[in-house]
Amino acid sequence: MQIPAQLNPTERILMGPGPSMVPARILQALGSPTLGHLDPQYIGYMDETCAMLREVFQTKNLLTFPVSGTGMAGMETIASNLIEHGDEAIVCINGVFGLRMRDMIERCGATVHAVEIPWGESFTDAQIATAVAAHPQSKLLTIVHAETSTGALQSLPGISKIVHDAGMLFVVDAVTSLAGHELKVDEWKIDAIFSGTQKCLSCPPGLSPVSFSPAALEAMSARKTKVQSWYLDVSMLRNYYTGSGGRAYHHTAPVNMIYALREALRIVLEEGLEARIERHRIKHLELRAGLEALGLTYIPQNSLHSLNCVRVPEGIDEAAVRRKLLADYSIEIGAGLGVFAGKAWRIGLMGHTATTRNIQTLLAALKDCLAT
Amino acid sequence: MQIPAQLNPTERILMGPGPSMVPARILQALGSPTLGHLDPQYIGYMDETCAMLREVFQTKNLLTFPVSGTGMAGMETIASNLIEHGDEAIVCINGVFGLRMRDMIERCGATVHAVEIPWGESFTDAQIATAVAAHPQSKLLTIVHAETSTGALQSLPGISKIVHDAGMLFVVDAVTSLAGHELKVDEWKIDAIFSGTQKCLSCPPGLSPVSFSPAALEAMSARKTKVQSWYLDVSMLRNYYTGSGGRAYHHTAPVNMIYALREALRIVLEEGLEARIERHRIKHLELRAGLEALGLTYIPQNSLHSLNCVRVPEGIDEAAVRRKLLADYSIEIGAGLGVFAGKAWRIGLMGHTATTRNIQTLLAALKDCLAT
Repeated sequence: MQIPAQLNPTERILMGPGPSMVPARILQALGSPTLGHLDPQYIGYMDETCAMLREVFQTKNLLTFPVSGTGMAGMETIASNLIEHGDEAIVCINGVFGLRMRDMIERCGATVHAVEIPWGESFTDAQIATAVAAHPQSKLLTIVHAETSTGALQSLPGISKIVHDAGMLFVVDAVTSLAGHELKVDEWKIDAIFSGTQKCLSCPPGLSPVSFSPAALEAMSARKTKVQSWYLDVSMLRNYYTGSGGRAYHHTAPVNMIYALREALRIVLEEGLEARIERHRIKHLELRAGLEALGLTYIPQNSLHSLNCVRVPEGIDEAAVRRKLLADYSIEIGAGLGVFAGKAWRIGLMGHTATTRNIQTLLAALKDCLAT
Repeated sequence: MQIPAQLNPTERILMGPGPSMVPARILQALGSPTLGHLDPQYIGYMDETCAMLREVFQTKNLLTFPVSGTGMAGMETIASNLIEHGDEAIVCINGVFGLRMRDMIERCGATVHAVEIPWGESFTDAQIATAVAAHPQSKLLTIVHAETSTGALQSLPGISKIVHDAGMLFVVDAVTSLAGHELKVDEWKIDAIFSGTQKCLSCPPGLSPVSFSPAALEAMSARKTKVQSWYLDVSMLRNYYTGSGGRAYHHTAPVNMIYALREALRIVLEEGLEARIERHRIKHLELRAGLEALGLTYIPQNSLHSLNCVRVPEGIDEAAVRRKLLADYSIEIGAGLGVFAGKAWRIGLMGHTATTRNIQTLLAALKDCLAT
């Protein structure tokens, strides 16, 4: 066959639902010489990465590590390790990612009690209290902190109390919120949480940071059956990531991706977690003012700062606008997903992307595209 | 917390069981600007990557793509997509990776008929014929082409005929052989095969190339139940990788790792697949002569070229030798695994690592370490 030409990716402004833009420092770290996955030097880098992840998750959970797959692998790690055949679980659904969690938990053999509200809305404490009361035998409740399909932010502390008062585990999808929104795993008593590297951490996609509370570990220890996934079985992974039982080889870790995540976390801590979260808030307000000045309206009442989901105006060919943005300005924004397919744009403002320069460039470009 | 120092990994000579050494060109590709996973430019790179994978696997199988996880994720993709509760499977075991396949297939709910021979040996056609005759109702038979734990190479064509004559699917673990040993997926009628990027492809770890034959696709279509892994469900992944049903979003692909694999495959095709396989053979002979001159003996009768598994001489502290190689020479070799723990060294000669310079450096260093 003819050998394809040398790689030469365009330097896009990435304002979709992820990946976000990756700082040069992280790309350089990614391209550093590969070490063996059992090399003491690499183990040191990995331990530092896990320590920084704890800081960013605001947790002391020992079992905090990056799963060797993209965000959905983190979701599946939690589902497959906490759920056994015959369990019951409450799944809160207000977008694509709640639906996925239901699918995954059902594949693990549990009966799912779905609590559904319209896409774009966020759950009230009262809705959760009703669901928990209706299904008191459930092992856990899952909810999405930042629904990437709708741009809705979910408040968590009140729900956490309701869930724990009922004796259930509290499971949170934080793919689009980690390091971009306030998120306090220990203070909010979250038992299992997962995220992705390609959102507010501004690292390339490829890893899914997860964290498990002591109560989650107890639930895993009490399992009567093996985890149905070997690749994601935490009872084996924990030996490698926490050093319990020696650094037993499980699978070959994605060494260079860990380099990148480590550098991404260093950048987060250099900026300061609080300052970074505040930057996401301020930049969201700037973008929001500009989008509303263009006549665009937000879909969710309680919008994320990291992802802005707006309605496509009547009579506009949404795909043509995205194509023109990409072709003429090399700017990527996201299409609507699920019920919002064809009806919404999703504009990401995550991590390194969240700057005034990118916001003003997008607003100018969007104004041009909407006028033609 | 104190922010860890800047990343500065040592440039090792990687002669363990993987990862192998990564050429600078691949590291540069890895660190290229991240594109969105639905960007037409990225989709083009991905399609080229899959086309080159077909070339290297020597197959026309449309469904040939890199799973978004390390090698074991590829093994699990095959197990979880081909196996349903109640199935029966024959698993050939002569090392760690046969054992793993048994574990994975059992977690998928199948009854496993294990065919075990001593570690380090390879299977004869007669052994397979006996097993197949004893369990004719089995859906598939799995075997390891290159046992990374023992260094044994397995001949496949004769076995393939026996398996197909019995109406079973033929499943092969090619983690340590792809692009380093002769391997003809179509000619040898392999129905499902997986590999890793960090071996003879000399790419960092993080992806697992897989390929499925039309017969394997039929078996998947005939499933009565959902694949128990959502993340690895080929019925959804194929839409993204082959374009059937549009390029539906499934999960965020590990974009930069695909860049690296694409570059690794370009390098393989530039060298020429046959020339590369011949280089592995020649360099193996050179290493073997040197190791035997040092008094070391090989464990497997039918040794891989890509991985050389030798006995640790009596009275030698094997871990001390590896530590000294790493500390004084920055050379990594592998320890024994499983029944060979403490008794063997595994010396990789894969991809970019397989050069006379590395071989002679190792031999000189090993001579020094064995003398002290």
